[in-house]
Amino acid sequence: MAEGKVLSGAGLRGQIAGKTALSTVGVSGSGLTYRGYDIQDLADNCEFEEVAHLILKGHLPNSAELVEYKSRLRSLRGLPNALKEVLERIPKSAHPMDVMRTGCSVLGNLETEEDFKQQGAAADRLLAIFPSIICYWYRYSHDGLRINENTDDDSVGGHFLHMLRGEKPKTLHAQTMNVSLILYAEHEFNASTFTARVCASTLSDMHSCVTGAIGTLRGPLHGGANEAAMDMIENFRDADHAEQEMLGMLERKEKIMGFGHAIYKESDPRNAIIKLWSEKLANDVGDKTLYPVSVRCEEVMWREKKLFCNADFFHASAYHFMDIPTKLFTPIFVMSRLTGWAAHVMEQRADNRIIRPSAEYTGPEPRKVTAIDKR
Amino acid sequence: MAEGKVLSGAGLRGQIAGKTALSTVGVSGSGLTYRGYDIQDLADNCEFEEVAHLILKGHLPNSAELVEYKSRLRSLRGLPNALKEVLERIPKSAHPMDVMRTGCSVLGNLETEEDFKQQGAAADRLLAIFPSIICYWYRYSHDGLRINENTDDDSVGGHFLHMLRGEKPKTLHAQTMNVSLILYAEHEFNASTFTARVCASTLSDMHSCVTGAIGTLRGPLHGGANEAAMDMIENFRDADHAEQEMLGMLERKEKIMGFGHAIYKESDPRNAIIKLWSEKLANDVGDKTLYPVSVRCEEVMWREKKLFCNADFFHASAYHFMDIPTKLFTPIFVMSRLTGWAAHVMEQRADNRIIRPSAEYTGPEPRKVTAIDKR
Repeated sequence: MAEGKVLSGAGLRGQIAGKTALSTVGVSGSGLTYRGYDIQDLADNCEFEEVAHLILKGHLPNSAELVEYKSRLRSLRGLPNALKEVLERIPKSAHPMDVMRTGCSVLGNLETEEDFKQQGAAADRLLAIFPSIICYWYRYSHDGLRINENTDDDSVGGHFLHMLRGEKPKTLHAQTMNVSLILYAEHEFNASTFTARVCASTLSDMHSCVTGAIGTLRGPLHGGANEAAMDMIENFRDADHAEQEMLGMLERKEKIMGFGHAIYKESDPRNAIIKLWSEKLANDVGDKTLYPVSVRCEEVMWREKKLFCNADFFHASAYHFMDIPTKLFTPIFVMSRLTGWAAHVMEQRADNRIIRPSAEYTGPEPRKVTAIDKR
Repeated sequence: MAEGKVLSGAGLRGQIAGKTALSTVGVSGSGLTYRGYDIQDLADNCEFEEVAHLILKGHLPNSAELVEYKSRLRSLRGLPNALKEVLERIPKSAHPMDVMRTGCSVLGNLETEEDFKQQGAAADRLLAIFPSIICYWYRYSHDGLRINENTDDDSVGGHFLHMLRGEKPKTLHAQTMNVSLILYAEHEFNASTFTARVCASTLSDMHSCVTGAIGTLRGPLHGGANEAAMDMIENFRDADHAEQEMLGMLERKEKIMGFGHAIYKESDPRNAIIKLWSEKLANDVGDKTLYPVSVRCEEVMWREKKLFCNADFFHASAYHFMDIPTKLFTPIFVMSRLTGWAAHVMEQRADNRIIRPSAEYTGPEPRKVTAIDKR
């Protein structure tokens, strides 16, 4: 401590803690970009695997590269036996993010990244295996089934839905998962990504960095907002009831999840995209409740508080329309954000200095130890 | 990004990233203090469990409190069966820090911290169980033995040595472990502790925070310096050979671990303390090589580079004289530093804002997605 420079804001808010070429967040006029591409453009025109390739390898793949990349990812879905045996020992009552964190950590014992030359391979493996980890544990602990995780589904999202339900997903669902995974893939120096970079700055291995990031995303102030939004909206009978209840919550100053953002000030560019897919799914299932309820919540929060929906709010209804259990919402976030985390780890390693800030000391003045029989 | 304030140094060096009442590092005149007590005073007059109580509970215990605390820690050494079964599935070839990280993560599934009211209990449990985790895996994977982790040893350090060797340690060894654990217990906003605080800032659970910290400590720029020092000094035949080899390494500008420090500029206050214990152990085992070699290394580095030994350098010989395998040096660091990590998590929670810095964008300008068949 002593001579450190005091930063103006708590939580390092607005402080530049490093450089990145991976994304911009909240820059006027573009909102959210991955390596220069606007999120809307990517969601309209790309598969998630193209975006993962962009983030992890640096460029959008051409057709041959995409075919090869998707084929490689398909070949990396299998769980080592030791990892299956570990997942079978995690109880049904466990927090699914604890399962993801543990699955990643165990894999680090079995397939250790021994050299940074293996970083690309380690990232691809995690991208391919995360859906297997969560679905294997979920189906074993909840349904007593040992699923086959080696499906031939074309996409990461389709693979996940197939294992979760035991049947190939319909096209609309696979498409929605594709868009959802694109939206959550990368978001600059958010807390979980910053954790991955602090860990990487000691030159630790990829599995340690990602394990730490999962643990950080687990916190309710970071991941989990879509789960909290779902818990709220499923209690509303219809749009009028939603409005009445939300006005009550606002009056009682209760925290309402899924609205506003630490960086975005006017809107979250991901909201309009996922909202559209939520509407498509609502029409597909003939929903007359959850989607109108969600729209009314959006209207009320904007009218009353000038707070906009963030990426999480319409994800709640979208996932719900696809019959995804609420407790698995945040693990899907992990399946996607792995791309950003791993790319940040590689970026940190390429121009590294150990991240070691100082603290302002607020404790006792120097003092002497009193002998224990005099305390 | 955009409007962020650019910090002057990479790695947030010298930047105040928060407040702490737990320790001061490198403040002129005191060197290293835990809650106001100088590290030399604590090492001379306290048991590790007293220091852990100081760090975790806020004050040095009186005799009754210490008896009760040590008794509680003894009662928390047992491994759940599911955790034993996981440890048995981790191969002998695994990195011991991966084992520690995984053990902590698995425990989070089995004994989840559901409420921050449980944070003190979760910390005590981790403090008591970490030696059990590493020794159970080590003895099972290396010796094929299922050890009894419920020893009646008085101290954390004694418990560790007992499980590692299958017999009660001699007094000198238990005393050295006691001092070593005191020296490594807490060190302000180092990278692993800062990881724990970033994780805690999303209001995640204790096991996630500590799991992330272990992964960060695993990096060779953070933990592991004592292992690297051991790997070096055990190659030296005698003091003259050490001097000759070190001069060669310096000329070739090779990195020499165990010297210098990011914060301390003149000396590391922990070095004189552990050096004395290394000398006692050298006399006890009749060593005529490793200790003189270590002393010569210290002399050469100071004479040639004005670099001082940090806490890690004489830890290498000290641990080696106690027959501790080199690969277990960093896990001992975990057994001790858990106290600092957990106390920082509690401190972060007590006055929290999510840690979410910004980045300077260095990537491509805004661009449009090209159709895949045109790439």
